[in-house]
This record gives sequence, C-alpha cells and structure tokens, in this order.
Amino acid sequence: MFITFEGIDGSGKSTQAQRLADHLRAAGHDVVLTREPGGSPGAEEIRALVLEGPTDRWSAETELLLFTAARRDHLERTIAPALAAGKVVICDRFVDSTRVYQGLTRGDLRGAVETLHAALIRREADLTFLIDIPAETGLARARARAGAEARFESFGRAMQAEMRAGFLDLARQAPDRIRVIDGDAPPAEVAERVAALAQAALEPRA
Amino acid sequence: MFITFEGIDGSGKSTQAQRLADHLRAAGHDVVLTREPGGSPGAEEIRALVLEGPTDRWSAETELLLFTAARRDHLERTIAPALAAGKVVICDRFVDSTRVYQGLTRGDLRGAVETLHAALIRREADLTFLIDIPAETGLARARARAGAEARFESFGRAMQAEMRAGFLDLARQAPDRIRVIDGDAPPAEVAERVAALAQAALEPRA
Ligand SMILES: Nc1ncnc2c1ncn2[C@@H]1O[C@H](COP(=O)(O)OP(=O)(O)OP(=O)(O)O)[C@@H](O)[C@H]1O
Ligand SMILES: Nc1ncnc2c1ncn2[C@@H]1O[C@H](COP(=O)(O)OP(=O)(O)OP(=O)(O)O)[C@@H](O)[C@H]1O
Ligand SMILES: [Mg+2]
Ligand SMILES: [Mg+2]
Repeated sequence: MFITFEGIDGSGKSTQAQRLADHLRAAGHDVVLTREPGGSPGAEEIRALVLEGPTDRWSAETELLLFTAARRDHLERTIAPALAAGKVVICDRFVDSTRVYQGLTRGDLRGAVETLHAALIRREADLTFLIDIPAETGLARARARAGAEARFESFGRAMQAEMRAGFLDLARQAPDRIRVIDGDAPPAEVAERVAALAQAALEPRA
Repeated sequence: MFITFEGIDGSGKSTQAQRLADHLRAAGHDVVLTREPGGSPGAEEIRALVLEGPTDRWSAETELLLFTAARRDHLERTIAPALAAGKVVICDRFVDSTRVYQGLTRGDLRGAVETLHAALIRREADLTFLIDIPAETGLARARARAGAEARFESFGRAMQAEMRAGFLDLARQAPDRIRVIDGDAPPAEVAERVAALAQAALEPRA
C-alpha cells in the first residue's frame, strides 16, 4: 500500500504524514515514512542540488529532469523494495506535486511531466490525501515556521491559489485515488479523518 | 553551426575537438569549445554527481535523467546563446554518446533516450564527427592516459566493441549529419580530414 500526501506549502502534509505513520504503526503495520524530493541517499543529494542556490539557478525544464531523477532513485532504492516487502509506504509529496509545481506554475510543462512519468516512473500512489487549505492559511503557516526552503518561499498568494486550484483539478481527474481532506481544522481532527480513510483502504487487503 | 565529436573512450574526441577549435579560430571564426557531461556551471555539478562514486551508485534510468538534466542546462546556458550570437560551437560528446552508452549498453533504454531527447532537448548537431577506432586501440590509449573517470573505466573490450558498433549504427541512420572519421592515424592526419569537412560545411554559410 503506497500512500502519498499532497497539497500547497504549509497545508500540513508533513504533520499528517507523521501522524498517519504513528497511527498505522500503533495498529501493527510495518510503515516506511519518506518524503520527496529526497527519500534515498542519491535523491537527497539531487534534492540539495535543486533546492539550494538562487531561484533562477535551474530552468523549469532542468528542474523537472532533476526531480524526476530523484524520484526514480527514491522509487528504486526506498519505495519499491518496501512495497515488495509488504510494508505500507507513506510519502510526503510525490508526482502530483511535480504535476502542479513544474507542470502548471513554472511554464507549460504539463505534457513533459506526463511524458517523463510514463517513460521512467510509471508508479502511481494507491491512495493520495490532498490536504486542502486556503492559500492565505498556508502562507501564514509557512511564514511562521522555521527552516523553509529559500527557493520556493517567495511564491506569493496568487501563485499559492493557482497551485491549490491545480491540486483540486488533479483530484477531480483521479477521484478514486485522491481524497480531498479539509486541512483547515485542528491537526488532531484532520488526522482522524485521514486515519479513517487509510484504515478503510487497508482493511480489504489485511 | 553546432559541431559535435563522438566515439568510444580514447578515440581522440578531446584531441580533435581542440585541434578543430584551434583551426577554425585561426581561420577567423568565433569558436566556443565545450564538452559533455558538463559545459555550464550547473551541468558540471550534475556531472560530478553522476561520475563520482561507485559504479552502481545510480541505475541506468537515473543516470539517463541526470545526463539529460545536465544537457538541458548546458544547452540553455552555453550552446544556444553561443549559436544565437553566430558562434561556432564545438562539443566533445553530445546526445549520440547517451544513445550509445545509456540506450544500448546499460539496459534497453533506447526508447527512453529518444523520448527524453524529443521532450526536453530536441536540438541535434549540424555536423557530427564520429572518430572511429578499434576497441583495443581505444582501451590501450585510455589506460595509458591519466585522469580517466573511475566509473566508466572498467568497461572491457567486448563492451567497447559493442559501443563502437552502436556509434557506427547511428552513423548509418544519420548519414547527412554524422561523418565517420578513421581515428587510427596520427593526430595531425585525423585533424586534417576533420578540418577539411568542417570547412566545407561552414563555407556555404560564410
Ligand atoms: N491543522 C493545522 N492547523 C494549524 N497549524 C498546522 C496544522 N497542520 C500543520 N500546522 C502547522 O503549519 C506549519 C506547516 O505544517 P507542515 O509542515 O505539516 O506543512 P507542509 O504541508 O508539510 O508544508 P511544506 O509544504 O512547507 O512542507 C507547521 O508549523 C505546522 O505545525
Ligand atoms: N590519433 C591518435 N593516435 C594516437 N594517440 C592518440 C590519438 N589521438 C589521441 N591520442 C591519445 O589517446 C588518448 C585519448 O585521446 P583523447 O583524450 O583525445 O580521446 P577521447 O576520445 O577524448 O577519450 P575519452 O572518451 O576518454 O574522453 C590521449 O592520451 C591522446 O593523447
Ligand atoms: Mg512538509
Ligand atoms: Mg575526452
């Protein structure tokens, strides 16, 4: 079972991924909690290359290739082996983030994103939680939090709103895979909804 | 005018690329001599990531994505601006090396190589010199030379022969672009043949 968390900056993906991992571990599942970009030693090195330095360091096209390289390594070295061993893999961001960030807001690369995915990744999550919050809420949370990556910090309200719409579009296109979760509620409440849906998806397999 | 040099390890690409640059500069051309992987600050960083470390550090697929990312950066930052300024660009290895190394000898990735090229690179050289030598000759020269990259050093004679055949196949498929040059002759002799063909290709444009 491969579960991903998606949503705009500050929506609560990392918070909820950690809570779901805790919940499923308590229920006896063997869980691998991982994240993108990164999640394997090679992919973490590519992540550093992409996220460090000035905003114009890479074009949208080069960035797309680097993110896809990191994803391929992460898939081969971390995700696929864990799934093959029967573990639950929870991943904080996956290809939907690339679809929205590179494919929508950074030039019209939607076609290239899907071409690369089809040629070299192919794997899609079994279940995706789209943590949905208003752009303003995400921005306020991200600003309040330390350690935000410099390169993506400068996206303004309009761009956050565009990305939110992009994620909701993806959810409409893949309603069986993507569950939209209202993230504008206390973390424990959001976690309860996520856990109930994950549990329901896991049960027929158990 | 975009000129590339291709061929197996030790065939004399770097030697001949430098000689052609010297020749064309002496003839009054504005020449940019560059190389792959690398050729722009970002691409050189990706090159280091790909070429350092153990042979199994990256899968063939991840390596293909990283090489294509480096090529995209090199094209945007070095090659395309120089061509737009009317310069002659001479590049030591380009996409034919990827076609042969990743597409042929490191897993059957030929389709993926062409898919990535069509989606994110597109640019093909105007003229390619395939410096052709027997596998044994290349191996002997490469061994004699210092500073060879560790990762690709271990390819044996059989693999060099396979790559030579792969390059010759490409030349048969693109006879207008790729000129096969016998590289098993003294460097000055090889350089003379290359210079004559480059001069002939440049003249109608001058
Ligand atoms: N439901 C919530 N209500 C209020 N604050 C929250 C909620 N969920 C998370 N936060 C806080 O908002 C900030 C962003 O949360 P988190 O890091 O989980 O988001 P994220 O989606 O992973 O962000 P990023 O895209 O930047 O990685 C954190 O400081 C977190 O403690
Ligand atoms: N025509 C030649 N005859 C004999 N030796 C040569 C000839 N051309 C180059 N060499 C020598 O062979 C070695 C390899 O040449 P060079 O570095 O130009 O090849 P290359 O194709 O760029 O190799 P690589 O693929 O490893 O970069 C060098 O030591 C060079 O001096
Ligand atoms: Mg996060
Ligand atoms: Mg060389």
